[in-house]
Amino acid sequence: MPLMPSWVASANAADHPFPLNNLPYGVFSTTQQEPRCGVAIGDMILDLAAAEAAGLVVLHEDAVFDVPFWNEVMELGPEKWALLRARLIEVLAQGSPDQSAAETMLVTQSDAEMHMPFLVAEYTDFYAGRHHATNVGTMFRGAENALPPNWLHMPIGYNGRASSIVVSGTDIRRPWGQLKGPDDDAPRFAPCARFDMELEIGAVVGSPSDGPVSVDEADQMIFGYVLLNDWSARDIQAWEYQPLGPFQAKATATSISAWIVTQAALEPFRCNTPPREQPLLSHLQDTGPMLYDIDLEVTLAPSGGQEMTITRTNYKEMYYSSAQQLAHHSTSGCPMTAGDLLGSGTISGPHKDQRGSLLELSWGGKEPLTLPDGTKRSFLEDGDRLTLSGYAQGDGYRVGFADCSGVVTPALENPYERSK
Amino acid sequence: MPLMPSWVASANAADHPFPLNNLPYGVFSTTQQEPRCGVAIGDMILDLAAAEAAGLVVLHEDAVFDVPFWNEVMELGPEKWALLRARLIEVLAQGSPDQSAAETMLVTQSDAEMHMPFLVAEYTDFYAGRHHATNVGTMFRGAENALPPNWLHMPIGYNGRASSIVVSGTDIRRPWGQLKGPDDDAPRFAPCARFDMELEIGAVVGSPSDGPVSVDEADQMIFGYVLLNDWSARDIQAWEYQPLGPFQAKATATSISAWIVTQAALEPFRCNTPPREQPLLSHLQDTGPMLYDIDLEVTLAPSGGQEMTITRTNYKEMYYSSAQQLAHHSTSGCPMTAGDLLGSGTISGPHKDQRGSLLELSWGGKEPLTLPDGTKRSFLEDGDRLTLSGYAQGDGYRVGFADCSGVVTPALENPYERSK
Repeated sequence: MPLMPSWVASANAADHPFPLNNLPYGVFSTTQQEPRCGVAIGDMILDLAAAEAAGLVVLHEDAVFDVPFWNEVMELGPEKWALLRARLIEVLAQGSPDQSAAETMLVTQSDAEMHMPFLVAEYTDFYAGRHHATNVGTMFRGAENALPPNWLHMPIGYNGRASSIVVSGTDIRRPWGQLKGPDDDAPRFAPCARFDMELEIGAVVGSPSDGPVSVDEADQMIFGYVLLNDWSARDIQAWEYQPLGPFQAKATATSISAWIVTQAALEPFRCNTPPREQPLLSHLQDTGPMLYDIDLEVTLAPSGGQEMTITRTNYKEMYYSSAQQLAHHSTSGCPMTAGDLLGSGTISGPHKDQRGSLLELSWGGKEPLTLPDGTKRSFLEDGDRLTLSGYAQGDGYRVGFADCSGVVTPALENPYERSK
Repeated sequence: MPLMPSWVASANAADHPFPLNNLPYGVFSTTQQEPRCGVAIGDMILDLAAAEAAGLVVLHEDAVFDVPFWNEVMELGPEKWALLRARLIEVLAQGSPDQSAAETMLVTQSDAEMHMPFLVAEYTDFYAGRHHATNVGTMFRGAENALPPNWLHMPIGYNGRASSIVVSGTDIRRPWGQLKGPDDDAPRFAPCARFDMELEIGAVVGSPSDGPVSVDEADQMIFGYVLLNDWSARDIQAWEYQPLGPFQAKATATSISAWIVTQAALEPFRCNTPPREQPLLSHLQDTGPMLYDIDLEVTLAPSGGQEMTITRTNYKEMYYSSAQQLAHHSTSGCPMTAGDLLGSGTISGPHKDQRGSLLELSWGGKEPLTLPDGTKRSFLEDGDRLTLSGYAQGDGYRVGFADCSGVVTPALENPYERSK
C-alpha cells in the first residue's frame, strides 16, 4: 500500500509519522478546549468531539468523543472501530467533500497538551523477548541457566500497577526503596541507585473476554499499540523479587506514548515470530503473522547535554506476540477488560547495541556507556531524559508512534514529606 | 464496650454477627429494588438509598447511596465515614426518634441478593503470614531455606487481578492451565488437578495516596475489611511462578464476603503483631496495635455431603498488618486508589489444624484430610463448597463478617467454547 494523500499537506511528507495511513487516537486539550478525543493527521489534530457534535463523524447514538479517554469507543467493538477508521479516511483524504467542514475542527499539535489516551483498566507486563531474557538470565543465573525452564513454553508475565501508568512528558521521580546488596549485612531504606528503563511496546486491549480466548480471538481484541517505557529500580527489584516477582521496583511509573496507533494502521507491517526452539502447545501456536516490523530507538540526553542514541532494535525480535500473550492471560478464565494494557517485555535485538535496557547495555554496570560529554552511564542519573521512538516503514510513507519521553527527577529528600 | 442495643430486635442477640456495634456496608437488590448501598443490622438491611432520598441519612449534597458500590462514600474521606457511622448508630439505636421512619426502609436480608460491595480498583495479594510462609517454604525449599531472606524485612506481595474478584456465592469454575510436573518430559494444557483455597482477610483502601505514606497514615486510609478466599491452582503455579511470580494460578477468581466490616467497628479488637525476629526498618515499624483479634474458620462440604470444619485460626497470627502492607506498597511512590483491595496473605496458625490452605493441611497431598463420609481430600473436588467465616468476640456481642462461600464447578470440556 502506498501513501494515501490527505488535504492536510504536512501529512503527505514521506517521513512524517502521522500520514492518512496512520490516524492514531489520542486525548488532547488546548487553552480553549477541555480534554477530549482527537485523531492525529500530519501536524494537526482533528477534534472528534467537535466533529461528532457537528454530525461529521458519528459512531453511536450517544456521544463518545467528548470524554477524556478512548474506552467508550473501544467498548463499541471491532466493527465500529473499522467504521470509524473508514469514515476518518473519507473525511481527511485528498479531495474529500468534507474538507471545508473539517478544516474548522483542526487544532495544531504544538498548541495542544496531550493526556493519557485511555483509562488503564489493569496492566500486565511480560518478559517475552528472547534476547532480553537470555541477557538478564545470564547476568543473574549464569549462561547455562539463562532461560527459565518454562520460558520457551509460555509468555511469562506478571501483573503490574495500572495506577502508575503515565503519559509521555510526565517527569519520573527517582523512587526510594528497600535495598540490600549481596554483601550488605542488613537492608536499608534509600533512594534507588540503579534506576533503569525498558523499551517495550504496549498492546491496548479493546474488547473484553470472559473465558479462555484463542490466539486469533485475542488478536481481534487488540485495539492498538503504544510505545512503553517500564521504568525499573534494579536494586529494589534484586532484593524484593523472590519468590513472588517484581513489586515496588516496577510501581513508580510506566510511561506510554500519547497516541494509540491502531492495529488497522499496522496491518501492512505484520510479520512472523521467530522460529520456535520448542513446539508451543496448540492453544498458543501462531496462526498467522502477529508481530509487526517496527523500528525502535532510544535516546538519552543528560540535563543540558547532547542527546545520544543508546539502542536501535525492532519489535519483530519478540518471541511471543501480544495476541499470544493475551491468549495465555485468559487461559485460567481471567476476565479481560477494555482498557487493559499489556507490556510486550523488553525488546532487545541479538547485538550489543540493540539491547533495550541499561542493565543489558552496561552489562549490570560492568561496561558503562560513554556519553558525548565524556561522562559514563551504567544507570540513569537525575536530569536524564529518555526518549523512545519508533515507526513502521512503508513504501514512501511511515506509520509512526509518538515519542515516549520522560525526565528523571531527584528523589524526595524525605519521602514522608510528599510533594508533587 | 458492651452490646449497643438496637430497636431491630434480632441485632441484640449475643451471637448475632451484625449488632449495632458492627454496621457493615454492602450492596443489595431485591425483586423491587435495583442494586444500591445498604447497611446490615441484625437480620435486616437499612436501604440507604431510600434513607438518603427521605433525608434521614444525608452525607453529601450529591446522592452517594443510590449506586451499586461504596467507592463514592470512600472518596468522601475518613471524617465523612465517621459522620455516617455516628448517624447510623443514632437512627438504629434503641429509643431512636427515627425508628418509625427507618422501619419503612428495612429489607429482610433473606429477601435480598448481595452484590460486590465496591468496584475493585486494583488488587494486591500479600504473603505475610509467618506460619504459612514457613510451611510453604519448607515444602518447596526445605526447612533450612523456608523463609526467603527478605521475608522478615518487608511484607512480600504481588499484584493480582482486580477483574477476577467475585462476591461470595459466585460459583468458581475449575481452571485449565499449562502444567508440568517435575518428572514430565513436556508441559501439557489440562484442567487444574490441585485446586486450593487460601483463607485471608482483605483490607479495602478507602483513601488515595500519591507518594510514600507512613504506617499511621496507611492505617487511616483503610475503610474496612472483608473475608477473602484466594482460590489457587497449585499445579499451574508450580510451573509458571519462576521468575516473575504467580500469574494464571491466581487469576481465575478471588472471592470476598459481601459486607465490608468497617475499621471503626473493629477498633475494640485491635492487637499487636507478634514479636519481631529482626528489627524492621523505621518506616515499617509498628506504631500501635494494627492487627485485630478475629476468630476465623473454614468449612468444606462436598456436593450433597456433610460440612466439616477444616481449619480454625485467628487474624492476629499475621506477621504484618494491612497498614504495614499498605505503607510498603507506597514506598516507591506507587499511587494508591480508593477501592484498592489488599489480601493479607494466608492466615495459618502454629498448629496443624490452624493452617489456612489445603496445600498446608494436606502437606502437599501427602497427608490427605478425611471427610465425614470417609472420602479423602488433598485438594478441592468438583462440587465442594468452601465457606470462610469469622468474628471478633466482644463482651456479650460479636462483630461478625458475612460468610465467604463458593462452590467449585467442573472445568469446561473445551475451554475454547466459552459458556457462563
